[in-house]
Amino acid sequence: MSSSTEGMNGHVHLEECNMYESDGKLFLSEAFDVIMKEILHKGTDLKEKVCEWKDPDQLRALMDLDLREHGESHEQLLQRVRDVARYSVKTCHPRFFNQLFAGVDYHALTGRLITETLNTSQYTYEVAPVFVLMEEEVLRQLRSLVGWSEGDGIFCPGGSMSNMYAMNVARYSAFPQVKTQGLWATPRLAIFTSQQSHYSMKKGAAFLGIGTDNIFIVQVDESGSMIPEDLEAKIVQAKSQDAVPFFINATAGTTVQGAFDPLNRIADISERNGIWMHIDAAWGGSVLFSKKHKHLVAGIERANSVTWNPHKMLLAGLQCSVVLFREDTDLLMHCYSAKATYLFQQDKFYDTSLDTGDKSIQCGRKVDCLKLWLMWKAIGTHGFSERVDKAFALARYLVEEMEKRDNFKLVCKGHFVNVCFWYIPPSLRGKENSPDYQERLSKVAPVIKERMIKHGTMMVGYQPMDGYVNFFRMVVVSPQLTTTDMDFFLNEIEKLGKDL
Amino acid sequence: MSSSTEGMNGHVHLEECNMYESDGKLFLSEAFDVIMKEILHKGTDLKEKVCEWKDPDQLRALMDLDLREHGESHEQLLQRVRDVARYSVKTCHPRFFNQLFAGVDYHALTGRLITETLNTSQYTYEVAPVFVLMEEEVLRQLRSLVGWSEGDGIFCPGGSMSNMYAMNVARYSAFPQVKTQGLWATPRLAIFTSQQSHYSMKKGAAFLGIGTDNIFIVQVDESGSMIPEDLEAKIVQAKSQDAVPFFINATAGTTVQGAFDPLNRIADISERNGIWMHIDAAWGGSVLFSKKHKHLVAGIERANSVTWNPHKMLLAGLQCSVVLFREDTDLLMHCYSAKATYLFQQDKFYDTSLDTGDKSIQCGRKVDCLKLWLMWKAIGTHGFSERVDKAFALARYLVEEMEKRDNFKLVCKGHFVNVCFWYIPPSLRGKENSPDYQERLSKVAPVIKERMIKHGTMMVGYQPMDGYVNFFRMVVVSPQLTTTDMDFFLNEIEKLGKDL
Repeated sequence: MSSSTEGMNGHVHLEECNMYESDGKLFLSEAFDVIMKEILHKGTDLKEKVCEWKDPDQLRALMDLDLREHGESHEQLLQRVRDVARYSVKTCHPRFFNQLFAGVDYHALTGRLITETLNTSQYTYEVAPVFVLMEEEVLRQLRSLVGWSEGDGIFCPGGSMSNMYAMNVARYSAFPQVKTQGLWATPRLAIFTSQQSHYSMKKGAAFLGIGTDNIFIVQVDESGSMIPEDLEAKIVQAKSQDAVPFFINATAGTTVQGAFDPLNRIADISERNGIWMHIDAAWGGSVLFSKKHKHLVAGIERANSVTWNPHKMLLAGLQCSVVLFREDTDLLMHCYSAKATYLFQQDKFYDTSLDTGDKSIQCGRKVDCLKLWLMWKAIGTHGFSERVDKAFALARYLVEEMEKRDNFKLVCKGHFVNVCFWYIPPSLRGKENSPDYQERLSKVAPVIKERMIKHGTMMVGYQPMDGYVNFFRMVVVSPQLTTTDMDFFLNEIEKLGKDL
Repeated sequence: MSSSTEGMNGHVHLEECNMYESDGKLFLSEAFDVIMKEILHKGTDLKEKVCEWKDPDQLRALMDLDLREHGESHEQLLQRVRDVARYSVKTCHPRFFNQLFAGVDYHALTGRLITETLNTSQYTYEVAPVFVLMEEEVLRQLRSLVGWSEGDGIFCPGGSMSNMYAMNVARYSAFPQVKTQGLWATPRLAIFTSQQSHYSMKKGAAFLGIGTDNIFIVQVDESGSMIPEDLEAKIVQAKSQDAVPFFINATAGTTVQGAFDPLNRIADISERNGIWMHIDAAWGGSVLFSKKHKHLVAGIERANSVTWNPHKMLLAGLQCSVVLFREDTDLLMHCYSAKATYLFQQDKFYDTSLDTGDKSIQCGRKVDCLKLWLMWKAIGTHGFSERVDKAFALARYLVEEMEKRDNFKLVCKGHFVNVCFWYIPPSLRGKENSPDYQERLSKVAPVIKERMIKHGTMMVGYQPMDGYVNFFRMVVVSPQLTTTDMDFFLNEIEKLGKDL
């Protein structure tokens, strides 16, 4: 191959095409205008739809997803950008209540756009100097809220991964030989978690080779909180089956009901039995910011590890999940280190203990700290506290209003911001004793959901749960919301379901 | 708690603050200007530095990373944005050669900014209609390049995770009971991978409970390619130790040397022994776009699974990694499913087989397909092919130029775009036989690296490797590069090392 510029036909041009840069920057600027108008202005406008719903086949036809041999024009591509914006769900919309994330924080979003543009990996100080120090500081602050002056931690791609990190570190802590020899070198291990805990416990047990049968499911009370007496019974049961209890997962903020397990009582049991205590506070961890509500996680500081997702209630944006460790004994490093000399050279000219790559199961790791840091700088610890308190207050308002209306029935009185309820349509009122009542009720939520999505007025999730047929779970996190939105929500459900 | 707006002192305001929205949008727009000027214009300007280097202590002082009770002003926050941009490494800079990613593609970057703004999760059609269909299409196209008309796949947060997905699916395929009963229900398992393969094999074996001792390390030849005869020997050895071979990892494009394992010969061995064959083509997979160079991965279609990172050579941006499967037997779904009814309801009004959540180990999963799709729409399959061919041509040019100069010595002649070499400083020329030659040579790269970073002129990686002391690894991926940049690179190394 020659070193000079070659001809057109199948040869390679080695000289730069300057057009590329300026065209590219122009495209990006124009696309940013589309982002501002079509996603952020329209997406946060109550008069616009949460979602311009299309069935999969319609959407395939509208989007022209095919990838071809040759590229498209500037104008065609801008149209693609508009189409993606148009047919996507606006999770920033004030009436998006479907997930445990919602709304938009403009400072966090700014942090995310900077992260994407800088396009670096969090693994070494060398390529991420600002972010390595920033991650350290953000983790320190989060640990301090948990109540730890020391410890360790890392940002993970989501709460499920954070939970698996904890599970693996706990296993390593009890049986370090598992890293080299595998599980054949250990007795059968047992995990304890409540029946309302997140499904990542199952996924983690399967992935880590522990097996889902070795999860002992602890019963919950009506509100969804783990029953400590049953935890003790399950530990005895596990031991009687020659399994070694090594990991208790307590949940702070269950996914559906928003229940908090009794952390102090679980910590007593875990200490008495010498079992690692993890708290999956992916959803509920953010109450730590609130003086009023942090009693819900009393005892959290007694855990060995905590998962916490600021991308949920704090609006940091997906993904922003941490796993925090109480011990400061470099467990993460010992557990994960693979000593890859090509990345983590020890003869660098700076303090290589700052390099985080060997603490992680990933190699390249996205920068997830900047969005949280910048938002924190913008609104302060106090701002997060207000955000959490407001979510609680709106949830209380919603419950009070719901209780004033005959058409709604709470699944249970919750302590957090999850409001779980049935809408009882006219045809089912007073029919609680009919034999097909539950079956007919189970079909109400799916129909209302279909209608709200097709109208685009709002989005809220529903699900069945252990003997309860389909009910709605309303979750309020966005600080942009007001009592008017809560009233709208109730009215809209009634409107969509009035003929059912 | 009252439902109406409450007072200031410690109470909660339930009404919206409209200022917030407009202030936030203004901030975002102003920050976008900073992104354009300080990251993209300066970052791609040869006259500017790749990195404004600061030692950790200096940087801590300059950045004021502390998080406080109260927020900062608009102007202070914009200054934060400028500071983050200023002190971060510009991976888009034409002289950033430090990693296996570099450069910037403006269409991909546009896709990334849209993804961040839409802030949704890839797990259901309900919240990600466009992206669920788009992921399907992008995966189909990538599989088609591998040579598969059917199959399955998923985007993962990085190549390490993609490799672990494959390892777990392979294990499940051979021993489905591992999902429920754990590894105690299986014989000891054995993994085979070359000594130059990526360290995620070790991390995966540890994480999955298989144990790093159960990885059988296969020898490589001088260029870094796996020696098939040794693979066969290692399989015999594993069996003699009562371990069951279940996973062969072949590498297409090793991290340091860029070597390709002989895939067809490895496929023969894997077929003969009934062992799952995975190919870690995180780095080298992109040669599939090039008619000229795809012979390097001849036989790739015989693998059971393939990891491929379009965030490396194709410039999609971190993270964009896929794991592809040849079989179309819903292995991913069977292996990972946890049947979480609160997310993956089966009574939805659309075809729920589109929901991908139960194929993933994550719950929330970032949208990684849009950046690749939009870039593909923009430059076409042909554009990627040119990008790959140009990288090869520039690497060849660099090697030719290096061979014309006495000051450089290649570690070995590579087949890919990794150029591994020593710079031999004046004081070491002709001293190959001195007893301390290797020790003195090992110190050259770290000193030159320190100088280039402090001057900010460029960044390139170095590392030792099995008996070879520290050498540089130059990797060219950005299509913005020209032969002038290659000449600059050689001149700069000579300039920085001339007194050594």
